[in-house]
Amino acid sequence: MLLAGVDVGGTNIGVGLVGDDHQVHHRAKEDTPTSVDALVAQVSRMVRSLDGTPEAVGIGIPGIIHDDRVVQAPNLEGWTAETDVAAQLSADLGVPVSLVNDAQCGLVGEWVAGAGQGSDFLFGVWLGTGVGAGMVLDGKGYDGANGGSGEFGHLVVRPGGARCGCGRRGCIEAYAGRRMMTESARALAAAGRKTSLFEHQEERGKAKATSGVWAAALAEGDRVVTEILDEAVAALGIGVANVCNLLDVDRVVVGGGMAGKLGQPFADRIAAAARPHAVRKMADSMVVVAGLGDDSGVVGAAEIARGRLG
Amino acid sequence: MLLAGVDVGGTNIGVGLVGDDHQVHHRAKEDTPTSVDALVAQVSRMVRSLDGTPEAVGIGIPGIIHDDRVVQAPNLEGWTAETDVAAQLSADLGVPVSLVNDAQCGLVGEWVAGAGQGSDFLFGVWLGTGVGAGMVLDGKGYDGANGGSGEFGHLVVRPGGARCGCGRRGCIEAYAGRRMMTESARALAAAGRKTSLFEHQEERGKAKATSGVWAAALAEGDRVVTEILDEAVAALGIGVANVCNLLDVDRVVVGGGMAGKLGQPFADRIAAAARPHAVRKMADSMVVVAGLGDDSGVVGAAEIARGRLG
Repeated sequence: MLLAGVDVGGTNIGVGLVGDDHQVHHRAKEDTPTSVDALVAQVSRMVRSLDGTPEAVGIGIPGIIHDDRVVQAPNLEGWTAETDVAAQLSADLGVPVSLVNDAQCGLVGEWVAGAGQGSDFLFGVWLGTGVGAGMVLDGKGYDGANGGSGEFGHLVVRPGGARCGCGRRGCIEAYAGRRMMTESARALAAAGRKTSLFEHQEERGKAKATSGVWAAALAEGDRVVTEILDEAVAALGIGVANVCNLLDVDRVVVGGGMAGKLGQPFADRIAAAARPHAVRKMADSMVVVAGLGDDSGVVGAAEIARGRLG
Repeated sequence: MLLAGVDVGGTNIGVGLVGDDHQVHHRAKEDTPTSVDALVAQVSRMVRSLDGTPEAVGIGIPGIIHDDRVVQAPNLEGWTAETDVAAQLSADLGVPVSLVNDAQCGLVGEWVAGAGQGSDFLFGVWLGTGVGAGMVLDGKGYDGANGGSGEFGHLVVRPGGARCGCGRRGCIEAYAGRRMMTESARALAAAGRKTSLFEHQEERGKAKATSGVWAAALAEGDRVVTEILDEAVAALGIGVANVCNLLDVDRVVVGGGMAGKLGQPFADRIAAAARPHAVRKMADSMVVVAGLGDDSGVVGAAEIARGRLG
């Protein structure tokens, strides 16, 4: 059976054809358009362009989704609860279309074909512009009473601490979301600290400090970015320990751009930061970096669509 | 159908006969013996003394349980993974016996017949000597990969903060567990602050400052206990908000001795403390005090035993 997975990000849309082997056989990637109508047309065209006809389509987007409808998608312009993208695309393509949170898609992809294989109590932390999370609990994808679970980025780990993009203080994302980390670097640079982060950004011709830009500045030992990453690791450690304490998961997958660039040593640092706060012993291999790279979201979206076919 | 529920605490054992109406029809209460063998004999006798023959028995104990075996029960002497109480009792009584964490029993009781009715995404905080928790996620009791979920008392909400009984710092239990709260009061008294807590304890002839003792000192506006309770409420608020952010539950039940004595106004205070840290709006009636009082554990244990009969 062939399924299509669609990974909608703020910058790009990735589409892939996924087979019974849970691998991506054919793929397409394009810029994300600004209007929702344009996006529906574009995703429809991209899916049709694939080398095979899928029996169902799954779409992952950065936002809160409930029953295939958007509850909140602050990073996608024009997406509201009234925008029924799944129904529009389903009418267009003639197959069932599922709409799901992108971090949940990423984790399901890793569960089925990546670093989460074999675990039925799995937590996934997705580190990108913000900090998202997905969960597989008792062998089943979990998304809460109203699709709003997995707000790991907004767990408060330092009450009264750094201001987060959400307006509150001390959230994990205030320390470990790339957008907030870049703001911290900018503030420190403005205060006279020397950092090469923005030179790397300029050199690479990027509109923002991407994970690659961060990795480059870290690799040369830049003090400011090193300190900011230390704070991020500390915050992620408290968060991961709290998730283990609360949910007794047996594996934590760390994915997203930052994890992709920094790899398993970064996951190991998060585990080391978590251990002192964990009430139970954490196994050595408990925190692992995602194995499918950019494909996890596409594979997961396709697999969720497959699961819904019954 | 009749079931028996057994609630084993550090001080008392409560046993009840529960019918299809989820109510306790007949009950017995005795002191908890010190040895495990004596406990098995005593529970067996207490169950036989009930006014009816149960088709299954559920036992809740304060500890980590996995597959009906004790993983850890620091508050019960002599209970280890080798102590197969469920099998011993089952052989003795001739019916299936389930062993479950007591906070999980309490929450299931509230879910079936108390303040949690109608919710399928339910979190229960049990405030007693320590701080325990139970979960019903997606309509099913949840206990994690190895029975260790629900360590809400050991969520770290103030990194580097107060020392907890578990040896770590900043756990919720360090602020909101009655044993730690009493230690704080003792330390403040030793440092010269005036408190009536220990006078109330003596007056009532209690070996420790029970929830009733605390409630009495709070009722007369004792400054020391009021300050300690304020800290407890603040810590519980951060924890409850984090649970809502992570799990998107739609109701939180607060039970246990302290909640029983302080009632819904206490639950309202926890909700008010949680709101500033919650990423989604929390409904007015989201945090509710347990409705079954001392019966929740017995009813929940019986209902878990019923569920296992298939």
